[in-house]
Amino acid sequence: MQKKSYPLAKVYGLLETGPVVLITTSHKGIPNIMTQSWHTMMEFVPPLVGCVISGNNHSFAALKATRECVINIPTLELAKQVVAAGNCSGRKVDKFARTGLTPVPASKVQAPLIADCYANLECRVADTRLVNSYNFFVLEVIKAWLDPTVKNPGTLHHRGQGAFMIAGETIKLPSRMK
Amino acid sequence: MQKKSYPLAKVYGLLETGPVVLITTSHKGIPNIMTQSWHTMMEFVPPLVGCVISGNNHSFAALKATRECVINIPTLELAKQVVAAGNCSGRKVDKFARTGLTPVPASKVQAPLIADCYANLECRVADTRLVNSYNFFVLEVIKAWLDPTVKNPGTLHHRGQGAFMIAGETIKLPSRMK
Repeated sequence: MQKKSYPLAKVYGLLETGPVVLITTSHKGIPNIMTQSWHTMMEFVPPLVGCVISGNNHSFAALKATRECVINIPTLELAKQVVAAGNCSGRKVDKFARTGLTPVPASKVQAPLIADCYANLECRVADTRLVNSYNFFVLEVIKAWLDPTVKNPGTLHHRGQGAFMIAGETIKLPSRMK
Repeated sequence: MQKKSYPLAKVYGLLETGPVVLITTSHKGIPNIMTQSWHTMMEFVPPLVGCVISGNNHSFAALKATRECVINIPTLELAKQVVAAGNCSGRKVDKFARTGLTPVPASKVQAPLIADCYANLECRVADTRLVNSYNFFVLEVIKAWLDPTVKNPGTLHHRGQGAFMIAGETIKLPSRMK
């Protein structure tokens, strides 16, 4: 791993494609991992990310209490671990032990980075107005890390019921979209 | 085109992968199209979709006034039209004329379906609490249409600055995620 600090203004390009992510939290010293696909960019700078963390998930309580998490973006090589993290609960299982994923300290939050993921976004909760209605948190990304050697990340994109689309090739179009 | 009604409970699988979508509105009889990537599922049934419609966009006023829209999902074959719709404003341009995309009447909303897209989701605005802060609308999908012959849609996924990832192959993993 050779992660480098990544400009916050470029974070949107990592999440806008809709990858499955692994969200890490740390509550009372116990780290946890959650597999997640329901997220969207909401602002470029500072980067805001809206995401649904189901109230059934152990991570929900951790995020509510600590107001911190890390969004880690895995690629195809980690498919087995992504599924393993999604198939058990942090209430009963040490997910780092179960998956073999590697936690490393973050710089600005208590939740760990997952070293195995090519990108890591340290986040603080910015808005909780829609948490009661939809379990929807608005997160602000306050620090980003990227492995710059990964040019075309083979991200996973959940189609439902265990079917995952794998990121294909990238094309360049004459778009004026940011 | 041979669109069929699609079960609302399966809609999440169409959007969870994070495709670029074309959002259509109709305001005072004038239809419009907007290219968009900032959306997320928020509930399975009824399907709720959160999405950011920038206040700079002509579609923002239409959605606020009519509280209706259609989310149309294009594939690679429509890349040129997707970019064209994103590079001009409905304030100045008839986007259907500009892009050559084909509007057809929806069943439950005034906004048109785009016939050329393999999936169309008719939506009503369900929650506007985050519109003032983030231009974030919660939409409820009230009717869905799908071309059932499209099994592996070559959806477009925006990486920023005109770079688009094209959906690759689909794999099946032993996930217990819904």
